[in-house]
Amino acid sequence: VKFAERLEDAARRNESHLCVGLDPDPRDVPDESLLEWAHNIVDATKDLVCCYKPNSAFYEVRGPVGWMALKEIIASIPNGLPVILDAKRADVPNTAIAYARAAFETLGAGAVTISPYMGTDSVAPFLAYPDNAVFVCCRTSNAGASEFQDLTVTDGRQTRMLFEQVACVALEWARTGPAGVGLVAGATNPEHIRQIRAICGDQWLLVPGVGPQGGDLERAVLAAQDRSGGRFFINASRSVAAPPSQAHYAELAEGSARSLRAKIEAVLPVPA
Amino acid sequence: VKFAERLEDAARRNESHLCVGLDPDPRDVPDESLLEWAHNIVDATKDLVCCYKPNSAFYEVRGPVGWMALKEIIASIPNGLPVILDAKRADVPNTAIAYARAAFETLGAGAVTISPYMGTDSVAPFLAYPDNAVFVCCRTSNAGASEFQDLTVTDGRQTRMLFEQVACVALEWARTGPAGVGLVAGATNPEHIRQIRAICGDQWLLVPGVGPQGGDLERAVLAAQDRSGGRFFINASRSVAAPPSQAHYAELAEGSARSLRAKIEAVLPVPA
Repeated sequence: VKFAERLEDAARRNESHLCVGLDPDPRDVPDESLLEWAHNIVDATKDLVCCYKPNSAFYEVRGPVGWMALKEIIASIPNGLPVILDAKRADVPNTAIAYARAAFETLGAGAVTISPYMGTDSVAPFLAYPDNAVFVCCRTSNAGASEFQDLTVTDGRQTRMLFEQVACVALEWARTGPAGVGLVAGATNPEHIRQIRAICGDQWLLVPGVGPQGGDLERAVLAAQDRSGGRFFINASRSVAAPPSQAHYAELAEGSARSLRAKIEAVLPVPA
Repeated sequence: VKFAERLEDAARRNESHLCVGLDPDPRDVPDESLLEWAHNIVDATKDLVCCYKPNSAFYEVRGPVGWMALKEIIASIPNGLPVILDAKRADVPNTAIAYARAAFETLGAGAVTISPYMGTDSVAPFLAYPDNAVFVCCRTSNAGASEFQDLTVTDGRQTRMLFEQVACVALEWARTGPAGVGLVAGATNPEHIRQIRAICGDQWLLVPGVGPQGGDLERAVLAAQDRSGGRFFINASRSVAAPPSQAHYAELAEGSARSLRAKIEAVLPVPA
């Protein structure tokens, strides 16, 4: 089954455009409690989300035990909910083949985030997987994103911002396939989300940066939705998945996810 | 000790500007022979190189066993030879902290390659390590590199190519420190190496792309050297580190490394 169909199905079933990031900082979530923590967070939110997004960094930093846990966590996600590995990979073609295998086969992720800087041939090996998808880091949510991504570029014919040029190329990748192609569009700059949506038509948008990074939820949702009010999801990591040191963290996660989901749906048009 | 000093020391001691990439494709190097293969390649070349560069992808694809091996291989590099982890990382600041810890603390690499697209704050956590270094992917060696990296950009004041803009910002990172900052400049485009050298002064250049990728060794060396004829290294992976299925692969590696080292030194000015 195509990744986009799994995502659409989960979004419809759970009436949700919320993705929960599973980003266990080792300072908050020790190795011993990692699997239990992830299990409890997922169990508390599995009817409220359309997908999960673990960020590779918080597992790599633990060494082999982290990689083992990451694989187990991905495999344990219930109800066919899609998993996006946030890893921002890409490399020369021969190496990208190994990265694609690592994400889709070794770890079993449904999709992976990729970094566009090295160009089409550094992403092509990921695109060869028909039932998987990539999310291209187009306009990221961090404060430093503007430094390169907002530069005015010209390819001799057109003049636009670099992130728009990336969105145009990502659309080509979507047309080539066979893998699915979504785009990362940070909530911290809704106007840029709107520009990306205008370029990429109906592709899925992954929208990080609400919560601690300060993106405005309502403005981000209004900018990110496609013509049918869908094909985007808002990611929340730290603001939903509280550390195990916090009392009743699973109940808190459920409450935060429920409230975020409702806030997102409230902005969307009522389906016909 | 600063990473750049370790690199300089190794280059002087072994009279070498050669880096050997340790990129064991699982199709050629099975898990069972991984440590022995790496040990034999390193043992055969340790007097002929200035550093080693394992690419993370070829270990990640193996799962936890690969990460365990990567850590062991890095720890086993003899004679204080520096190790650059080729991982092309960077992320939002909170996540980049975990990536920097993973590379420098968990895995024990001396330096790591980073992807510039997300900007200064996505790299800052790596720069906080005084005895480590980053190599910024500035102009990569793959065929698709030109797609974004060679676009003409303007920040409102200056007009240049994107990779030149990245080189300028990397120079700022070098001035800020305390970590060392080098730049990746692919051998497949010597003119671009020259432009990067002109911008970055005496920073170290990592030059991949000779061998299977087709870069011209002599032209790359002439473009990459700094005023003293140094502060660069040519990386060779597949053309030196043959797979264990090849008879006498360690002797072949020694021969290839010796010949490449000589070819590089032959182009350089004789030290005064």
